[in-house]
Amino acid sequence: MRVGVPDEALALALRASCGDRADFVVWSVDDAPPDQPFALLVLPYMDAAAVGRLSPRVSPVLQSQSLGFDGVAGLLQPGLTYCNAVGVHEGSTAELALALILADRRGLPAFVHGQRTHRWVSRPQPGLAGSQLLLVGSGGVGNTLARMLVPFEVEIVRIARSSRDDELGPVHSVARLPELLPEADVVVIATPLTDDTRGLVSDDFLGAMKDGALLINVARGPVVDTAALLRQVTTGRLHAGLDVVDPEPLPADHPLWDAPNVTLTPHVGGRVTTMSARVRRLVEDQVNRLAAGQEPAHIVLRT
Amino acid sequence: MRVGVPDEALALALRASCGDRADFVVWSVDDAPPDQPFALLVLPYMDAAAVGRLSPRVSPVLQSQSLGFDGVAGLLQPGLTYCNAVGVHEGSTAELALALILADRRGLPAFVHGQRTHRWVSRPQPGLAGSQLLLVGSGGVGNTLARMLVPFEVEIVRIARSSRDDELGPVHSVARLPELLPEADVVVIATPLTDDTRGLVSDDFLGAMKDGALLINVARGPVVDTAALLRQVTTGRLHAGLDVVDPEPLPADHPLWDAPNVTLTPHVGGRVTTMSARVRRLVEDQVNRLAAGQEPAHIVLRT
Repeated sequence: MRVGVPDEALALALRASCGDRADFVVWSVDDAPPDQPFALLVLPYMDAAAVGRLSPRVSPVLQSQSLGFDGVAGLLQPGLTYCNAVGVHEGSTAELALALILADRRGLPAFVHGQRTHRWVSRPQPGLAGSQLLLVGSGGVGNTLARMLVPFEVEIVRIARSSRDDELGPVHSVARLPELLPEADVVVIATPLTDDTRGLVSDDFLGAMKDGALLINVARGPVVDTAALLRQVTTGRLHAGLDVVDPEPLPADHPLWDAPNVTLTPHVGGRVTTMSARVRRLVEDQVNRLAAGQEPAHIVLRT
Repeated sequence: MRVGVPDEALALALRASCGDRADFVVWSVDDAPPDQPFALLVLPYMDAAAVGRLSPRVSPVLQSQSLGFDGVAGLLQPGLTYCNAVGVHEGSTAELALALILADRRGLPAFVHGQRTHRWVSRPQPGLAGSQLLLVGSGGVGNTLARMLVPFEVEIVRIARSSRDDELGPVHSVARLPELLPEADVVVIATPLTDDTRGLVSDDFLGAMKDGALLINVARGPVVDTAALLRQVTTGRLHAGLDVVDPEPLPADHPLWDAPNVTLTPHVGGRVTTMSARVRRLVEDQVNRLAAGQEPAHIVLRT
């Protein structure tokens, strides 16, 4: 079995861990098509556009290194199976969400600025204990964050497309947002980007949040209406911690950079050094499945 | 029963919650002694020196708003009972420790600076998952932090004066530090300041830490030898997140302000808006005990 991978580092790691089960070939979308299709092609990280140039002649099975796959369906040529990267980013993205929450609730950005000017000043911060957190999106990222929050002294309310119960308790339907938003001290967006969630965080959504509440977005930029958010943060009414924005990368002259109480990180939810080991394990698992004549795991699109 | 409190806000809160059980009088150390001693005097927050000017004629029982009581024993006049503020700060201090850990491990200070210059750049960060954390001090703060870390994909190793087992697992003796320090990615100092812990984090301690490891101090500044730490962070070998430093407040011309990979917060472990409600509950509990003829709780010194 021949497997295409986007870089030499991943090829080396895979040869070391499962080189007996497949040949790992470094191949990029700009290279000539292989003589025989790969059994599996691992896509480069965060380069969704490249997927439109791939046909089953290159590989009938495509393994993304991302969890989100917004926009991919419209690009895929016929005859392809597209798998997303379940298990690679949920922990690191939830970790970043918590980092952004704690940074805001404890005033860290102001202390970082104060440090530059050698100023030892503080005022009481809200902290996280005693807060209510509303998690919008109860998939891998949202539920990993919910589990991380259990030992804190917080109330966790979860929302998904439809209501259900799971081992963490009840999940409410998105229809209940209007009544739940005014109660939350922190609202975390961790949904996929779909037609339903595009622009979900609108003027109405933000207007329903309480004064001084914090919006976190670790999903995809277009889930939040940037202009609506700017109106709310510019007045100082809401705080925000955004790992994803719309547009992305944020242009240097965008007013969001300097908006008060907004912390921006440049889409780094998955950018941890342990990511490569998780990708390696995911690909190894897919190789084992294909070698055993099974379907690959985590199929999210099939054309 | 008459209870002295340092500010009107606390007096108002206590009158509302338990005004039927005691009279709450705003009294400061600069005021004339009361006609009759208070049954209990609540000390101002973070003003340890004032305690030396108090005698049993003011109040035989002193309730601090702090958890640490380093230096107090040498100041107390005879005939006093001194109680620390168990239950007020452990959660917020552990929360700040985790905020500092996540901020460093996800590169937030660099992103805060990048935001000011409108720069959308990143490089992979170590993250927290997969790390080993060494918690030096397994009292209220250390164990609250240990419980917060359970849902993360981390290994937690705890150290105290002497080895023991508790519901979170084994606690190792401080004698094992030399063998445990080189393994840790993050070392958190959460000990009281005593003759044993003053200067504990020395050249030898820091030299035993691995390259790129992070030192967090949420205990008291003098537990860390500042000059030794400066030597290690100036070369870029170690990272640090310090809520407490020695000296404090840090003078404007101190080199620690500009040391690379050092995040400083101005002793705000307990500075959250929910602190006042916790102090109010603590004092209410002490009033109930005294009214029932019991000893106050959390006595740490008696002269």
